[in-house]
Amino acid sequence: MITGKNYIGSSLSASGNKTYHTFNPLENKPNVPVFTEATSQEIDQAATLAKTAFVPFSKMSTTKRAEFLRCIADEIMRLDEQLIQTYCSETGLPEGRAKGERGRTVGQLRSFADLLDQGDWQEATIDHADPNRSPIPKPDVRKLLVPIGPIAVFGASNFPLAYATAGGDTAAALAAGCPVIVKSHPMHAGTGELVASAIIKAAEKTGMPNGVFSNLNSSGIDVGKYLVSHEAIKGVGFTGSIKGGRALYDLAAQRKEPIPVFAEMGSVNPVIMLPKALKNRATELAKTYAGSITLGTGQFCTNPGLILGIKGEGLTAFSEQLAQDIMQIAPGCMLHPNILVAYDTLKTTASSQMGITVLTESTEPAQPNFAQQAVVAVDGGTFLDNPTLHQEVFGPFSMVVACEDAAQLTQIVANLEGQLTGTIISDEDEINGYEDLVIALENRVGRVIFNGVPTGVEVCAAMNHGGPYPASTDSRFTAVGVHAIKRWVRPMSFQDWPDALLPAELQENNPLGITRTVDGKLIATS
Amino acid sequence: MITGKNYIGSSLSASGNKTYHTFNPLENKPNVPVFTEATSQEIDQAATLAKTAFVPFSKMSTTKRAEFLRCIADEIMRLDEQLIQTYCSETGLPEGRAKGERGRTVGQLRSFADLLDQGDWQEATIDHADPNRSPIPKPDVRKLLVPIGPIAVFGASNFPLAYATAGGDTAAALAAGCPVIVKSHPMHAGTGELVASAIIKAAEKTGMPNGVFSNLNSSGIDVGKYLVSHEAIKGVGFTGSIKGGRALYDLAAQRKEPIPVFAEMGSVNPVIMLPKALKNRATELAKTYAGSITLGTGQFCTNPGLILGIKGEGLTAFSEQLAQDIMQIAPGCMLHPNILVAYDTLKTTASSQMGITVLTESTEPAQPNFAQQAVVAVDGGTFLDNPTLHQEVFGPFSMVVACEDAAQLTQIVANLEGQLTGTIISDEDEINGYEDLVIALENRVGRVIFNGVPTGVEVCAAMNHGGPYPASTDSRFTAVGVHAIKRWVRPMSFQDWPDALLPAELQENNPLGITRTVDGKLIATS
Repeated sequence: MITGKNYIGSSLSASGNKTYHTFNPLENKPNVPVFTEATSQEIDQAATLAKTAFVPFSKMSTTKRAEFLRCIADEIMRLDEQLIQTYCSETGLPEGRAKGERGRTVGQLRSFADLLDQGDWQEATIDHADPNRSPIPKPDVRKLLVPIGPIAVFGASNFPLAYATAGGDTAAALAAGCPVIVKSHPMHAGTGELVASAIIKAAEKTGMPNGVFSNLNSSGIDVGKYLVSHEAIKGVGFTGSIKGGRALYDLAAQRKEPIPVFAEMGSVNPVIMLPKALKNRATELAKTYAGSITLGTGQFCTNPGLILGIKGEGLTAFSEQLAQDIMQIAPGCMLHPNILVAYDTLKTTASSQMGITVLTESTEPAQPNFAQQAVVAVDGGTFLDNPTLHQEVFGPFSMVVACEDAAQLTQIVANLEGQLTGTIISDEDEINGYEDLVIALENRVGRVIFNGVPTGVEVCAAMNHGGPYPASTDSRFTAVGVHAIKRWVRPMSFQDWPDALLPAELQENNPLGITRTVDGKLIATS
Repeated sequence: MITGKNYIGSSLSASGNKTYHTFNPLENKPNVPVFTEATSQEIDQAATLAKTAFVPFSKMSTTKRAEFLRCIADEIMRLDEQLIQTYCSETGLPEGRAKGERGRTVGQLRSFADLLDQGDWQEATIDHADPNRSPIPKPDVRKLLVPIGPIAVFGASNFPLAYATAGGDTAAALAAGCPVIVKSHPMHAGTGELVASAIIKAAEKTGMPNGVFSNLNSSGIDVGKYLVSHEAIKGVGFTGSIKGGRALYDLAAQRKEPIPVFAEMGSVNPVIMLPKALKNRATELAKTYAGSITLGTGQFCTNPGLILGIKGEGLTAFSEQLAQDIMQIAPGCMLHPNILVAYDTLKTTASSQMGITVLTESTEPAQPNFAQQAVVAVDGGTFLDNPTLHQEVFGPFSMVVACEDAAQLTQIVANLEGQLTGTIISDEDEINGYEDLVIALENRVGRVIFNGVPTGVEVCAAMNHGGPYPASTDSRFTAVGVHAIKRWVRPMSFQDWPDALLPAELQENNPLGITRTVDGKLIATS
């Protein structure tokens, strides 16, 4: 049952008087449950509980933490139809998507549990003593990654399960040994509360300290600001807009004790289509990209919003075909009226810039909250000169840029802001003639893709989801895949420390059997 | 020969009109060479060169970069007596210290070269494709750490070689593939120019792109501020005061594109002496700590500025003996008159706080620029209530805090600001009775030491030099040891990328023979 209350640790609480509803965009009406926003006092309680829980949670064996993560996954599955129906009612997304995203969410939780069982991620490093070294003896030094403290997680509007309450950031932080306080996304507060209840149940079943997890309702920006400013919070995970992410980053940087903010923000995900590929495959590419641009009604952070090519018949043929194909795809419902308003505003701004040609735009009156897809075109020089055209239009929209030549194409890529992804469409060896372009692209993105589409982020260890600012606030960490755990840990050295008091990972006889670097030699056991 | 000019890449330049001298604190007079501060135009030139050099330098084989680092070490050794004499004249430190620090500096450069040859640090990760996976095929994804871009390095006043021009930050950044622009420390501009000349010579000998290194003279804060704000700069390394480090951090956070700042700043390095150890070894401990407090005239970031114990005979005996022993040590010359002024001011502030007892303080008129060591005492309650007493007094000074009991001792430790180190002095098993205290200490520091002194930072892979703020601005990275390279790299994924175009580290047949994680399995070769 959805209570509309906050979870302050394992206690339900609703002492505030600010309430709100979620919204069903397909039915174009608010959902029934009433949610009560967390008060400052409730946030303080959650933060104090998290701080207290940090000590036992951080010191707990990784096996116990793995058990907790797997139990969360099981409890989420047990929410069954109620979760799927709530998800659909709060997003307008179809049941298939809900189930797919649920699968990804529990898969992530279990992959972090596997990582914990393996133990290799902790970078255990041992340098033995040398008492006979001259002029001074060498001490015994051992290093391990340890958790940094309670983390605040701000979920994404577009992934109510996989990047929200028990999503990637939460799973990574809990795996690291950091308690988590989620600022629930107002658009899917019901989904959030259900998942929070699963986490709380799992925490109780596996004997976690109270306060290891809290879930705070929030309808605006106050709860998040208060939370990020709280001295008990030692790190922040965020997925959303540049404006929102930057505001949190600034707030965290201005604290007496600044804390890291990992904000995964905007990206137009440039796609470069080389001439031979366009000449040989314009029709096929147009079809593929019409699908990628409209996937999930364009509401993916890896949506291809910018397609770059060199002026010519190939690019013209592609653009015309793309304009046709994209109109064959049924318009989709957006997650929330506010997201549609933002989409329409940004689309209109982009489309009305000097030099822009609208290749296609659905103008028929759509159902309420359904997005009208659009493709626009512009020449390279105009694009270069107008930063407004570089901005993300979040939704089923893309811009085709016709460059004068390879030099201008390279110049445009080199001048882009940081991006999550960059894609090159090439006829096999064609890419070899574009070394400078490829280097320029690599310098602006966190992931390059060859002859594919940027949408669809594989959850695997080799995945990097992040990139130079503003794709993310810290390009040195991924938000997807098990290496995301590295955001929430810091190295800690033990010098001449008694063996029995060392963390098991660093004890001389390696009781956990993990991979370690000993006196410069990596000894792998996995 | 010291020219007093800036190195803008390989060119000597002095187009400005702001000049300054370094100072010989032992002779109490300025040194002869005249240094010309870099102009904005010269900084722009250095930054543009660095940006241009970044592409070939970042793409260069790690073998070539290793050769460059080793050549820098050789060229530094070739500076021979001129370097040692300049170092001594600019610091007042003895020749032995100069040679020791030079050894550490070239040792660091060579250890990063070894790391590059080994290749394991790049976290190469490969997840193979599965075209038959349902519902969607799995792509081939490969990940590697790549350099982030040109780095600005601000060296330390107290390590003119090991944490300056070719010190730890520079070595780590060059190893990572990032060009470096050093803002030369005004107190040892001559030492800096000599080392810069060695780096430039090595760059030319090993065929590095011009701009891979620049050295900018600076007498105040303007050059550094301009440099950190420059769009070409993608990261900052700093060692120095909290005030200076925080100012750079704030500046970097306020940029349109925020960049990471790794500032290693203040620390009082708490030492906890447990009762039995004090009872049995007060005399020996006093002698050891008198040496540690005055080592290098107290000018180490790991200087033990705070000694915590529980009230009693043992602590009293230790304090009295420490006060005696420290007066037996000959006063030392400080690095610069300004550092002595800061020391005297902070010492006076601390000593004049309510409840402080000055156990000993040399009051004889000392030679110019020589520091008068001091030890003060205070009770736990007074210390807890007065944040002024928690501040670092950079120099040969320490404060002994007498706590009421173990609970108050733990409370004090839990309420300390972040520290580089924390030391526990214990009679073997005595520590077992202090679990809460040990946990509290671990949460506040980056390194714990058992029955030793915090001074003397071993350069090894297992070392962590850093800690919760304000010990450093980012506790997730070490400033000492080869893992310091991780500050200057970001992950980059290649999806379905042609094998021949992949970095060698990620090519299917592993031509470099490095350690990689393939389909979840770590395959070590080192």
